[in-house]
Amino acid sequence: MDTVVLKFGGSSVADNIKLNIVAEKIKEFYDENKRIVIVVSAQGKTTDELIKEAMSLSSVPNERELDVLLSSGEQMSMAKLSILLNRLGMKAISLTGWQAGIFTNNTNQDAIIEDIDTSRIEKELNNGNIVIVAGFQGINRNMDITTLGRGGSDTTAVAIAAKIKANHCYIFSDVDGVYSADPKKTKVAKKIDAISYSEMLDIADEGAKVLHNRCVEVGERFNIPIVAKSTFIDNSGTLINDKIEGSTVKSIVKNDDLKYVHITSKTTYSVDIFNNIYYSFIENELNVKNLVNSSADTIDITFTISKSKFNKFAGLLEDKWPELNATYLDITRISVIGNGIMSNNSIVTTIMHIVDKNHLNIISMEINEAKIAIIFKEIIPDEILEELHKALIS
Amino acid sequence: MDTVVLKFGGSSVADNIKLNIVAEKIKEFYDENKRIVIVVSAQGKTTDELIKEAMSLSSVPNERELDVLLSSGEQMSMAKLSILLNRLGMKAISLTGWQAGIFTNNTNQDAIIEDIDTSRIEKELNNGNIVIVAGFQGINRNMDITTLGRGGSDTTAVAIAAKIKANHCYIFSDVDGVYSADPKKTKVAKKIDAISYSEMLDIADEGAKVLHNRCVEVGERFNIPIVAKSTFIDNSGTLINDKIEGSTVKSIVKNDDLKYVHITSKTTYSVDIFNNIYYSFIENELNVKNLVNSSADTIDITFTISKSKFNKFAGLLEDKWPELNATYLDITRISVIGNGIMSNNSIVTTIMHIVDKNHLNIISMEINEAKIAIIFKEIIPDEILEELHKALIS
Repeated sequence: MDTVVLKFGGSSVADNIKLNIVAEKIKEFYDENKRIVIVVSAQGKTTDELIKEAMSLSSVPNERELDVLLSSGEQMSMAKLSILLNRLGMKAISLTGWQAGIFTNNTNQDAIIEDIDTSRIEKELNNGNIVIVAGFQGINRNMDITTLGRGGSDTTAVAIAAKIKANHCYIFSDVDGVYSADPKKTKVAKKIDAISYSEMLDIADEGAKVLHNRCVEVGERFNIPIVAKSTFIDNSGTLINDKIEGSTVKSIVKNDDLKYVHITSKTTYSVDIFNNIYYSFIENELNVKNLVNSSADTIDITFTISKSKFNKFAGLLEDKWPELNATYLDITRISVIGNGIMSNNSIVTTIMHIVDKNHLNIISMEINEAKIAIIFKEIIPDEILEELHKALIS
Repeated sequence: MDTVVLKFGGSSVADNIKLNIVAEKIKEFYDENKRIVIVVSAQGKTTDELIKEAMSLSSVPNERELDVLLSSGEQMSMAKLSILLNRLGMKAISLTGWQAGIFTNNTNQDAIIEDIDTSRIEKELNNGNIVIVAGFQGINRNMDITTLGRGGSDTTAVAIAAKIKANHCYIFSDVDGVYSADPKKTKVAKKIDAISYSEMLDIADEGAKVLHNRCVEVGERFNIPIVAKSTFIDNSGTLINDKIEGSTVKSIVKNDDLKYVHITSKTTYSVDIFNNIYYSFIENELNVKNLVNSSADTIDITFTISKSKFNKFAGLLEDKWPELNATYLDITRISVIGNGIMSNNSIVTTIMHIVDKNHLNIISMEINEAKIAIIFKEIIPDEILEELHKALIS
């Protein structure tokens, strides 16, 4: 008998109407006599609202207690879905993170699943139950509640799938799969039918928000086929698995949400200053990329940083290194992704031809086995993405 | 070092302003270096709202799953209070029912606490933490979440107090103690300073809603002094303990929320019919009182039932025993409560004098060691309560 894990995101369970649509989806698998584990997120904007309520009591809420608060969101949505499924005649039982045996490390708000004791899940499956597990949460070895951080429900789903050796893990959301480019930026974007784990990781890494990085990593490690599908549109979605098809471009990600930072100083370069700066980036969770120090004599550092982190960075710089000068540019990074594309010369040639023709200023370009990433000196229009897509994909 | 348990009801933690008042109350005990366990209910109307949401998905929600849903209410309020206390510099940690080791039987929505494994609570107290426990919830031996039914948070508090041998259990709510009569019905009602467990049980039994019956029973069994106090008004509240003071009247409860039912039938009386009727009352949780069968030949039964249960009863009667005739009266029951009042003849005399003077029709009267209860043939005005109060109490 096939076992499947189905994960439904917050927008899929946002209200009673949507819960009923989710129940219909589940019924399709139920009628095929599959053993079913469901993983749910909190309803709609519940998590954001709970964070807001916590912040209204303390600007820096106690981290352990914040997780106690946040975890109630999934507890409510799983109970509601279970009440609905039982009413519809599908025998279901809901399990919180601790009941489902999801053990994590101690990092509140960003915990990592260390192990899953699936004995309760398996027992309930064997009893003929649909098992509904709260996503995004677990307990540490001290029996305290933890949450996995944003996108954590995807990881819960794939990790359970790995542990119970499920045949597939379906990630249902309000998008119907992984696209060859952001459909909001170009109409020529098309849904990808199948993609490899590593390509998917590159796409997620470049800022596409379909699937959480960590969940794809777990899928790759345990070779669990992941299907990203829409809850509301009935098509086959995107299959993410270990099969690599051809040396073709799978996706182009255009990221305009970046600042290019250039830091200089007259003071003599020392490895200590450089390391200090880099360490405080990590400490403050500033996801700095493309970090380069261009001089061996003075401080002359460049990197990119997402706009959402920029204010935090600017404050940090002013506080800690007021002697440094910094200049900023709004830029675009375009990444062309596909296994083996480095060995296909025509792809680089095609890209460079389009760059030349449009007189685009390149700051830097990196080429590796599965990705060609270019940083431009300015925000470039979406038409360039469309032109690249037409030339490289369709 | 003294140990105290403080319980705060839903209206005491309804919003951020009230949570701050609760935090101030806690600080008074904290500054006295007491070991503190807090028990909280869900905020404001949360439980009612969650029930409504469950009912919108199923008119008869799965009972196990309803408890999963309801228990999230206390989880949210305890986390919020803990976030606030920590922000105010009071080291606090919140524990759900399962974390606090509250084991119950399997009766969802009306579970009874069977045992409390207080090891985690004691460990956190020894670590210098204020321990905040979710009221109203526990787990059964199958590790499934249960709820204790209405008023269950009071019971959680007193049961924990009993188990950790607390010096006092404070029940904070929006009323400032137990009154000698309902202050809404007579202005002469006054707060009682101290009362015995058994008197308190009689008062609760007669319909006063200050404290939950079960919590007083637990207090009596383990001799935990309970203090019923207001969160918002600063006075000493009412102490409920094992001390019985004099043979005086402590409280008069006037209950106008009753129907007097008279069932007759021409069919010959049989013990089977009588038992059947009585059994179906119990099965349907119809709290019928003063049940009397007056005839040995035909069916001729009288009893009282609260108005909130009346419709359910009437439906049951029509469904199951359409051959029975039933007549109904709106009535008042007045109960005069105080240990040893039966042996004080002047009390009965005083009551009867007032009844006579006002030409009140009595249906029945029961007198026992600690209570004189009279059922009148109609709703009697609150002025009678006031007259009785002036004659018997002040």
